Amino acid sequence: MLEQGVLDGNVFLLSKAITLIESSAERDQEPAAALLSRLLPATGKSVRIGISGTPGVGKSTFIEHYGKRIADRGDKLAVLAVDPSSQQSKGSILGDKTRMEELARQSNVFIRPSPSGNQFGGVARKTGACILLCESAGFNHILVETVGVGQSETEVYQMVDLFILLLLPGGGDELQGIKRGIMELADIILINKADGSSAEQANHTRKAYANAMQLMQNARQHWKPVVQTISALQGTGFTPLDEKIHQYFEAANASDYIGKLRRNQSLHWMHEQIREGLLRDFYLNPEIKDFLKEMEVSVKAGQISSHQAANELLKMYLGR
Amino acid sequence: MLEQGVLDGNVFLLSKAITLIESSAERDQEPAAALLSRLLPATGKSVRIGISGTPGVGKSTFIEHYGKRIADRGDKLAVLAVDPSSQQSKGSILGDKTRMEELARQSNVFIRPSPSGNQFGGVARKTGACILLCESAGFNHILVETVGVGQSETEVYQMVDLFILLLLPGGGDELQGIKRGIMELADIILINKADGSSAEQANHTRKAYANAMQLMQNARQHWKPVVQTISALQGTGFTPLDEKIHQYFEAANASDYIGKLRRNQSLHWMHEQIREGLLRDFYLNPEIKDFLKEMEVSVKAGQISSHQAANELLKMYLGR
Repeated sequence: MLEQGVLDGNVFLLSKAITLIESSAERDQEPAAALLSRLLPATGKSVRIGISGTPGVGKSTFIEHYGKRIADRGDKLAVLAVDPSSQQSKGSILGDKTRMEELARQSNVFIRPSPSGNQFGGVARKTGACILLCESAGFNHILVETVGVGQSETEVYQMVDLFILLLLPGGGDELQGIKRGIMELADIILINKADGSSAEQANHTRKAYANAMQLMQNARQHWKPVVQTISALQGTGFTPLDEKIHQYFEAANASDYIGKLRRNQSLHWMHEQIREGLLRDFYLNPEIKDFLKEMEVSVKAGQISSHQAANELLKMYLGR
Repeated sequence: MLEQGVLDGNVFLLSKAITLIESSAERDQEPAAALLSRLLPATGKSVRIGISGTPGVGKSTFIEHYGKRIADRGDKLAVLAVDPSSQQSKGSILGDKTRMEELARQSNVFIRPSPSGNQFGGVARKTGACILLCESAGFNHILVETVGVGQSETEVYQMVDLFILLLLPGGGDELQGIKRGIMELADIILINKADGSSAEQANHTRKAYANAMQLMQNARQHWKPVVQTISALQGTGFTPLDEKIHQYFEAANASDYIGKLRRNQSLHWMHEQIREGLLRDFYLNPEIKDFLKEMEVSVKAGQISSHQAANELLKMYLGR
């Protein structure tokens, strides 16, 4: 049984289960949901950390080093990726990374590239389900990686307990292509590449961001976002980072923050899944497909308003 | 009849028609769509311009001056506002502006504040419909104002022919709270407050943005975005702006750009309206409402996965 295999930590069957969850086929939706529900009691017992940063900031070097530390102390680590852009390219941010290979060879590390989405979204939802499966399989550390350029941060934020943003020394966040809204999501900001000739600049950047963070609104009651330098390449700065992460979870658990956060995240995902399901049912309906093509032609020709076309389509669909 | 009143340019009946279009009541949806369809042949004959910029940049002073010039040459101007944040406050960006009062007193100027949305969105869609109604009533210039901070720009971009971004002298766009994506939407960038002691800095800023724009991707084939200084307060820079707008439309019409743009915009709105309609029907369904409350409790209590809850709800709804 897939369920027992996952619970036993069988990585082959875990992969199979993830493939089922990720499937867009109609016949897989029901069994996927049922599997998740049966595994639910075994989920939730991990530390879920999101990691974001623009390409070139050193995310994979960071994850490699961070992950080895986790694995070395006997914990089990799953690294997942969210990359909405892969909906087009069908690629993945983890897929082509030789850097991660050493990490992937460790027996207590599981690496899964970004799932491909469908026209109704779904990449983030699938990653959320993937977290639950990995937890059921005994992984007690989940890293969710995302490229810091789109809306994927907000989605990853909705599935993790702690959000880490990696930045480069020098340059405002505008120059780094980081949006202001993403800064506000970060619980810990790391100025990476604090090594060699960049060390001094990294420290300057750290101070500048520490000042900037003080001016920002902070919705968390238990935690003030912190900024520190790190060198993923040289492996320096990881011990203070561990301490900060520890402090974060200590403060969070003291106030049931994580519990509340996860309950609200679950509701968020329920509504996201409802929206995806409604769109899927509408757009995959064969009658609607045909009528939609007609309506698109009429709207493009200016024969009918978009308003009226939408109404006609909704009438046909909802009047079933 | 409402329809004939609108076509006659009766502003009182135009307002009534807009109220009908903006209504969230179920019984108003069908008549609103029907009215729009009947008025469709009378729409499309205006210049649709979007104006965006952060609070304090001088949007209302700009609109007042720009609007007076349009009215003075005998054209009819409608000023509409999109402000998704008004969904919460029920306020509106145009509502409390004494500045616009003088403009509003002109007989060939129609000013309409931002409609309030509902939980399924709808502010932008309603503004889109409002444009069509104003066009039917003979307004040949439509200005759509939006605050340059959220996603409203992208929505306004989907309903106008030309997008103008107002900026302040000095400071990168990051400091001005302008997101990179919004820069790419702008067909014309105006550095406002190019007067008094700020004149020199405004010119510096203009050059900096002109350089930056050259580095950006430009999806338009007929037009390279331009940057100029202006003083809305002193009324200087409006003649060169008029020329640029004229050039823009000349180039656009030569390549049927506006026609293609508007046809694609119509399709965009059709899909937006479908999405809103699907969500509305689901969330307003009385059986679903009750079951949703139950499911929310179960998900929050961790008794059921968000996946399974969404599936149960969809099964009940789609299995009707």
